[in-house]
Amino acid sequence: MRYPDFVLSLPSWIDRFLPEPERVYPSIQERMRLVIQLSRLNFEEGTGGPFGAGIFDMQTGRLIAPGVNLVVPSNCCIVHAEMVAIMIAQQAMGSYDLAAEGLPRCEMVVSTEPCAMCLGAIPWSGIRRLVCAARDEDARSIGFDEGAKVPDWVASLEERNITVVRDVCRSEAGAVLRAYLESGGIIYNSRRTA
Amino acid sequence: MRYPDFVLSLPSWIDRFLPEPERVYPSIQERMRLVIQLSRLNFEEGTGGPFGAGIFDMQTGRLIAPGVNLVVPSNCCIVHAEMVAIMIAQQAMGSYDLAAEGLPRCEMVVSTEPCAMCLGAIPWSGIRRLVCAARDEDARSIGFDEGAKVPDWVASLEERNITVVRDVCRSEAGAVLRAYLESGGIIYNSRRTA
Repeated sequence: MRYPDFVLSLPSWIDRFLPEPERVYPSIQERMRLVIQLSRLNFEEGTGGPFGAGIFDMQTGRLIAPGVNLVVPSNCCIVHAEMVAIMIAQQAMGSYDLAAEGLPRCEMVVSTEPCAMCLGAIPWSGIRRLVCAARDEDARSIGFDEGAKVPDWVASLEERNITVVRDVCRSEAGAVLRAYLESGGIIYNSRRTA
Repeated sequence: MRYPDFVLSLPSWIDRFLPEPERVYPSIQERMRLVIQLSRLNFEEGTGGPFGAGIFDMQTGRLIAPGVNLVVPSNCCIVHAEMVAIMIAQQAMGSYDLAAEGLPRCEMVVSTEPCAMCLGAIPWSGIRRLVCAARDEDARSIGFDEGAKVPDWVASLEERNITVVRDVCRSEAGAVLRAYLESGGIIYNSRRTA
């Protein structure tokens, strides 16, 4: 083949970090705490930016797929935490649509509100609910560019029957963003201000 | 590993179809005709939706990476033609930023104007110019959902120093969309109207 395959692998620390697959996270706060731990470990382990995501079975609270930002190690601007979680979850479910018949109702839990790209991907994914910790302005305040989002992005999802829950453990997620900045982490692709 | 790798492979017909790697496409019309052929072959070969993309060296007109919509065969809602082209181009260049120093200036040529997700991805990719054939309303007119795009999406790219050229071979690209519809091609994930 003239063009090699694109291969996305989760960092090996994720397998070591995650508890047994049967573990359930009954509340959205418990789900969010797991995701915030992923966001922190991702930069502490040196595998990417300080962003985590998880797709959960809404009803049972089982983790279907984790996601972390892998832009730098993967040489790919697309692999934000949300996109990684969608790719892994859809592989696991064998469908490009997590709302397909026979699948559990899925929600995405994210340590920071989605950028314009991830926001655009969410309606294609089949998730039913989005749960967010840090606000997009928290990411912007440390220099990340969230892109040109539609003015009322929450309403744009709710029009498509995707519920949005904001500010769950916002301060804990914000602390990870600030810790990343203080550690000297790179703020990549912030071309708007360049 | 608990979570298998996500592997994206281009369909094998692409290698057979593309001319020698040294071939150059001096004009944007020539680049667009190649991309429209990709969009048509993709559904005729049964490997996905009727959308094509290509990332070109703006100066020489060499194709750096092709892209076609691979949502259905890849079980992944994210792999629109534009996203595939970005993934392949960034792998080939070894950078998550096609605007990194030392790389050729890159442009993306697309058979249909980008959906909300791909629009969000473009500023992260490092491409300098976007060249479009069919309008997003042409895709909407056959039932595809382009998502919630910012009202003036062209201006949103140009604010980030990405030039946008529209309506290049629009009628040829529109003919491919209509041929897809007439062939009974599936219009997936059109949840808005469901």
